[in-house]
Order: sequence, then C-alpha cells, then structure tokens
Amino acid sequence: MTLIVQKYGGTSVGSIEKIGRVADKVAAQAKTGDKIVVAVSAMSGETNRLIELAQTMSLKPHARELDVLVSTGEQVTIALLSMALNDRACEARSYTGSQIRMLTDNAHGKARIKDIQCDRIRSDLDAGRVVVVAGFQGVDEDGNITTLGRGGSDTTAVAIAAALNADECQIYTDVNGVYTTDPRIEPKARKLDTITFEEMLEMASLGSKVLQIRSVEFAGKYNVPLRVLSSFEEGEGTLITLEEDNVEQALISGIAFNKDEAQLTITGVPDYPGVASKILGPVTAANIEIDMIVQNIADDGTTDFTFTLQRSDYETASKLLTQVKDSLGAKKVIGDVEIVKISLVGVGMRSHAGIANTMFDSLAKENINIRMISTSEIKISVVVEEKYLELAVRTLHAAFGLDSDAASKSR
Amino acid sequence: MTLIVQKYGGTSVGSIEKIGRVADKVAAQAKTGDKIVVAVSAMSGETNRLIELAQTMSLKPHARELDVLVSTGEQVTIALLSMALNDRACEARSYTGSQIRMLTDNAHGKARIKDIQCDRIRSDLDAGRVVVVAGFQGVDEDGNITTLGRGGSDTTAVAIAAALNADECQIYTDVNGVYTTDPRIEPKARKLDTITFEEMLEMASLGSKVLQIRSVEFAGKYNVPLRVLSSFEEGEGTLITLEEDNVEQALISGIAFNKDEAQLTITGVPDYPGVASKILGPVTAANIEIDMIVQNIADDGTTDFTFTLQRSDYETASKLLTQVKDSLGAKKVIGDVEIVKISLVGVGMRSHAGIANTMFDSLAKENINIRMISTSEIKISVVVEEKYLELAVRTLHAAFGLDSDAASKSR
Repeated sequence: MTLIVQKYGGTSVGSIEKIGRVADKVAAQAKTGDKIVVAVSAMSGETNRLIELAQTMSLKPHARELDVLVSTGEQVTIALLSMALNDRACEARSYTGSQIRMLTDNAHGKARIKDIQCDRIRSDLDAGRVVVVAGFQGVDEDGNITTLGRGGSDTTAVAIAAALNADECQIYTDVNGVYTTDPRIEPKARKLDTITFEEMLEMASLGSKVLQIRSVEFAGKYNVPLRVLSSFEEGEGTLITLEEDNVEQALISGIAFNKDEAQLTITGVPDYPGVASKILGPVTAANIEIDMIVQNIADDGTTDFTFTLQRSDYETASKLLTQVKDSLGAKKVIGDVEIVKISLVGVGMRSHAGIANTMFDSLAKENINIRMISTSEIKISVVVEEKYLELAVRTLHAAFGLDSDAASKSR
Repeated sequence: MTLIVQKYGGTSVGSIEKIGRVADKVAAQAKTGDKIVVAVSAMSGETNRLIELAQTMSLKPHARELDVLVSTGEQVTIALLSMALNDRACEARSYTGSQIRMLTDNAHGKARIKDIQCDRIRSDLDAGRVVVVAGFQGVDEDGNITTLGRGGSDTTAVAIAAALNADECQIYTDVNGVYTTDPRIEPKARKLDTITFEEMLEMASLGSKVLQIRSVEFAGKYNVPLRVLSSFEEGEGTLITLEEDNVEQALISGIAFNKDEAQLTITGVPDYPGVASKILGPVTAANIEIDMIVQNIADDGTTDFTFTLQRSDYETASKLLTQVKDSLGAKKVIGDVEIVKISLVGVGMRSHAGIANTMFDSLAKENINIRMISTSEIKISVVVEEKYLELAVRTLHAAFGLDSDAASKSR
C-alpha cells in the first residue's frame, strides 16, 4: 500500500469539468488501494478575482484580512473536489489550512510552514478516505489565517508529504515533466525521467519555471521524492530525487536560459579593498537584485567590474553606477540590455573535467562570442548576445548529447 | 459605554461601495466609544452563485462539503469590511465561525448554535477593536464547518449579543422598521417604534418577513433587545422587546397577511373520534404543512373539515383528500386557491374583549365574507377571498386606529 500526496494547480482545477476529471483520476487511483492526500489550488483566475476585489475595496489591503479573503479561493476548490469524489463512491473529506492546523509563522502573504498536525489526515486515510487539503494556506499560533504566497500549493503538498512520510509527492501541472531545455527553442528537447533536487533548483531559478523553488528546497531538505506530471496527459513525468539514487548520472541534465537579463560594466576602477561593495552598495540599497558578478584581476592598478541584473532595473542601476563612477574616479560605465544568460546544469560536472572547455569550444565554432562566464559546482553560465540564444542553446544541446535522437545518453 | 452587535444582510453589503458605506457607519459609531461587533452575510448573489457551482458539480452535493463551499461567501465579506474599517483608522479584526468557535450541532445546512467562546471577541473589544464576524456559519465539535441555513446571519448576531450580554442587537435591513401592515397594500401603514417578541413572531410567520423567526425566538429566549433598522436611511427603526417593557400597550400592533394559501374542505365526514387524524394523516405523511384547521360541531352525525396549506401543495393534497373521502365515506372535497389569510396581531388582545367582533363587523360592513376563522391568544386570523385583500387590510387598519394620521394610538 502506497501513500501518495498529489497536488493539482489552478489550471488543473480551472472549471467544474476539470475538477470532475481530477476526481476521476483520484478515485481510480484510490480504488487500487493507495492512500491519497490531494492538495489543490484555487480555480484559475479566482485568486486574481479576489485580489482585484481587495484592491477595489482598499488602496493598501490590510495584510491579515487579505489572507482571510484570498484563502477562500482554495476553500471553494476543496469543497467542489470532495463533492465530486463522494459522488464517485470515493469517500473524501476536505480540510482548510486551519482545520489540519498547517501551522505557519504570522508573515501574512508569505508565511512559512512550521508544523503540521497529521492526526486527522491519518485517521481519515486509515478509514479509507481521500483527504483533500487547501493548498497555499495555513494558520498562525493565534489562529489567524495565513497564506504562503503565490505557488504555495506546491509547498503545501511537499510539507504534507514530508510530515506523513509519504512514498511520493506528485505535482500535476500543465507540462508533462522537466525538459533538457525549452522545447520552444530546441524542438529536440527531451523529457528527463529523473533529475536531482540540486539540478532542479538551478533549472528553476534559471527560468524553467515548473515548480516553485521553495517546494523543491523543502522536498530536498526532507528527502521527499517529488514527481512532476501532466494533469491532462498520461505519463510518468519527471522524478526529482536525491543524487545518491542515480548511479548512472548523466553529465549534463539540461540547459537553462534567462532572457530577462541586462549587463552593466564599470571600467578603470581603482583597485583597493572594499571597492566592490562601494560599487554594488548603492545598487542593492535601491532594492535591485544582482545576478552574476565578475571582476578580473587588475594589472595596471585598475579593474573592470561587471554584473548582470533584471532588465527592468537597468535604467535605474545605470544612473546609480554613473554617480559611483565619478566618486570612485573610474573610467566609464558601459552596459547592454540585449544579452541572454545560458547555463549548463548537471551534477555530473562535479566528477567530469573538460565540460567548460567543450561548452566554450562549441560556442566558438559557431562564432558566438562569450561576454561573461560564471561557474558553480553544478552549473556553468555564460552571457552572450541575445540574438544568439536559439543557436547557442541548440549547439550546446547537441554537443552534450541531450537531443532526443541521441539515445546513448538517455536515462 | 455601550456594547452593540450589528448585523448587515446581503443587500447592505452587496457591493464594494455598499461595504464602504457600512464601514463609514460602523467607524463613526466606534469613534463615539461604543464597543461594536458586526455580523455580516455574504454579498447579495454570492450564496446563490456558490450553490449553483455546487449544483453544477454534483446532482446531490455532499452536505458537509456544501457548507465548506457556501461559508466562503461570508468569509469574503468579513475580510473586505475589515479592510475598509482599518482604512478608516478604525482597527478591526475579522473572524470566521470556526475562529470564534461558534459551536453548533452537526446538522449541515441547518445547524443550531450550542455555544460561543467570547474570549477573543472580548479581548479585541477591550483593545478598542471592532470585531467583524461571519454570519450564518459555525463549527461542530469535530471542527467541521457548518452553516445555520438561509437567514442564519440574524441568528448569529443575536447569539453573539446574548453571549456578550450586549446592550442591543441591531439588524440592518433594506426596510426601516416593522410596519403595522405592508405599506404596498395600505399606504397609511405606520412604522412601529416598538413591538413585542411574541407579536413579532406572529407578524413574521404571517408574511411580514423582516427578520428570521429563529433569531426572534432566540432574542426572546435570552432577552436580547433587538432593533430592526435600515442600512440606507437614518432612523431609530423598531425595537423588539419583552412585553413587560411596554406599559402603554396598544390594542393591535399590526395586520399581517399571507397570499400563499389555499383552502381545502372535506364535507359530510362521519364524525367519530380519530377522524381528524385519518383526514390529515396522508397529507402530513406527504410532507405537506398544514396551517389553519377548522372543524365544526357535527349536528347530523357528519362534520365538515377545513384546512389551509401552501398554494403549491394544493394539487397533491387535493388528490390525497379525494382518496380519504372515499375510504371514509365522506361527501365531497371542495377547495379554493384564490384565498388570503389576514391576521390581527397584538398582545393587547389578551386584556381587551370585543376585538374579534370589531374585526368581523368591519369586514361585514364592506360585504367581505369570512370563510374561516381561527384565533390564538394574541392573534385573530380570517380567510377571505383573495380579491378582498387590499380592501380588508385597509378596512381593519383604519378600524383599529393604525393609520398614520390616527395620532391617538401612536406609540
């Protein structure tokens, strides 16, 4: 007998008909004898409708009350899904975040889960019932309703799976798994059967937004096997596991990219200790997030300092940097918004030399100039001109044997 | 310092703009130093929308889950109203039925209140906060969400007022008080400043549907002063009190009527003990509610038996009665749907003779034939042909000095 926690997002429960289809699926699986907990989001569009209602009511909706309002979205879904399950002779009970005591801190709108009382869930499962839980919401120590923030339903599912020591946490989405890269850029992109938590984190933060990052961290921390599947198609999806589970580790798992980046460089900066924070200080003080940072060794007593940031912050940061340039006596500020960051991700990098070289070599053969390089243990990122995005992704996808016709690397 | 519980119905909170106006009103009163608890219904139309959603999902929505669904309606209102109050520098906190532990039995959809924990409400009030409570909903001993049934928000307000020993429970509606009769029938109808609980019960059950009957019973039982006021107009409304409070009791408080009645008579029934239950048994077994019942003394060994019922049940009851007629050897079944019941209501009847006679006399002078009479301690009801409704009401309204220009009886 298997204990499975399933999560269905807003699109999967976006209409009465779709909720009915989810109920068909859950009821069928429950009949095999599996114990099932289902976490659901609000019907697609519903959370936005509620937020608009709040914004019409108040210029700055009170945080505690906004959570009271928005949490009704998931409450509607759990009730409808439980009705549908009961209609299918599959006994089911719904619970709000308060009812199962999904205990969180009191940071309304972005609360973090602290504890879950599983007694009620367990006794329902033991009685043969499917348990339907409202995702995205919890309750603080004083009984106030909290929400985990957008996408928090993934985290709800993972937290319940961890607390129940479930065999698997299945996240149903509108994609059928995690791909080696975006299939819209490279039609030969291949669905991965498995990927490690670390790789998934790198892929997600780099733009392949399938799962909420926090839920992946959570699953990794508590070692909950996480599976991404499609609500609408059959298939095994992609299993996200601990590295140790994969003996045959592929070199590279995937290629992520981020088009939403811009690059800023300040040249001829007198090189002395603390100069980096003098440059970045005013930028971060303006709440601008910095992504990659590169600084070369100075050879003539001055250095060039480059970083990337979100494209929407480019203008503001550029102005701030010009002020910094004058006060530091640096040479000039140059920048570019037409760039893209492309990253190879793979835990195999740790044990294999030469991956960086293969990457640079492949790009060079296509005359793609690399403007910035940054590496971590399981990732190599390069910045290139935006116009090379498709060419660079396809070149690397082929070079690292990720193409769907490259059967040798299949896993 | 006064402690007031206010209730605003669905029409009063039917839009963002109207919720804003309720917030203006509550905030202004809170600034005078009054302690205020507000119970609210779902925005008008919202409960119906949710029920339709359930009916689209399921032919027979699971009762527990229907309550989970429908209770979101009030939860939306409490959040929006609390936001609006906080925006008006009037600190406010919202609570669902679960959060204040409005303990009910587990009869989903028509639960009855058993207990209220007032600790949280009291400490908020003591801290100078307005407390906003979701009407119509509660929680059973196992933490399941329950609803009190349609109109239950009135009962919520009264129950909280009783538990807090509030100075007054104010029910805000779309009328500005209780009238001597329906102003659409008699333009001279006068708003009553006071009415007793008993009279209000008779008025309400007879068709002047201002308050939910159960809430009036509840208020009477716990001696909570209840006031009906308009959300949209200024004014003192009508105070519903214990009889003892009114030394100068008027003879008649009002004239109620019910057009939704039909009449059925079975004639020539052999008169022997138990014949009444032989006649009504099959009718009540079919879940048809009987209103007035009249049976005269038999003079020739047979009797005529007449009762009234809801017009929609007429056809079914008529068929049942024809079967009864044959088995009892009665003469015939006659009936009429074009009738109306008109009732005089007033605790003054108890101590004044001759009221019935004045009533019959006034109607006779207008050539209105009385087809049925039934009396109770504080009420006299007659059945007349429906076409006489307006004439009969106006005649009695004048005869008992209820007209707004009849200053002598004002109270």
